[in-house]
Amino acid sequence: MLQHSSLDQVFHALADPTRRAMVERLTSGPVSVSELAAPFAMSLSAVGQHIQLLESSGLVRTAKVGRVRSVELVPAALASAEDWFTRHRSRWEQRLDALGALLEEPEENEVPTPPRRKR
Amino acid sequence: MLQHSSLDQVFHALADPTRRAMVERLTSGPVSVSELAAPFAMSLSAVGQHIQLLESSGLVRTAKVGRVRSVELVPAALASAEDWFTRHRSRWEQRLDALGALLEEPEENEVPTPPRRKR
Repeated sequence: MLQHSSLDQVFHALADPTRRAMVERLTSGPVSVSELAAPFAMSLSAVGQHIQLLESSGLVRTAKVGRVRSVELVPAALASAEDWFTRHRSRWEQRLDALGALLEEPEENEVPTPPRRKR
Repeated sequence: MLQHSSLDQVFHALADPTRRAMVERLTSGPVSVSELAAPFAMSLSAVGQHIQLLESSGLVRTAKVGRVRSVELVPAALASAEDWFTRHRSRWEQRLDALGALLEEPEENEVPTPPRRKR
């Protein structure tokens, strides 16, 4: 399990849409920095800063092979962050169930669909 | 599903150990602000700022009943954040499996079990 500080960094890293998109891209495998940068309308330097923050959070690791730097996901870091939710889910699920029951109550103006009869 | 900006705010809210501890506490039910503040060695004003940030992220809502302000979890916001992990899990799980297989490889000093021959 990740320490508090690591979990802080992982959640901080994920609090940005560009970095989440990068992580999503990396779930299908390692890519070069330039491949990872391609979909984003930003400078390579800005992309580099995002990658650096992802790396310091432990979510990705990078490696230089020849002249190409590749970026790879570290699944254990993602799994540990998800684990935080899993550990507390059972309690809040009871609350979601209660919310669901509330949402399923027919609204005032809503005409309930009559059940179909078989012919 | 939460919009990008909301997911940004939820992950940002969770990137702090005090706020995560508050959310964990709230999974067992609503409490007053002073009850929520009790375990933390910080001023009520600092606690108030954490609660405000949690509220603007959509993770909690507050309500004032008489002279007491109570804080309640909004489970849907937590569930949406967890959903981000769930949607990308299958891909990175394959990578975790690969990592697991790697870790299970016999170490140098370990004598591998020879394959059994059928008699």
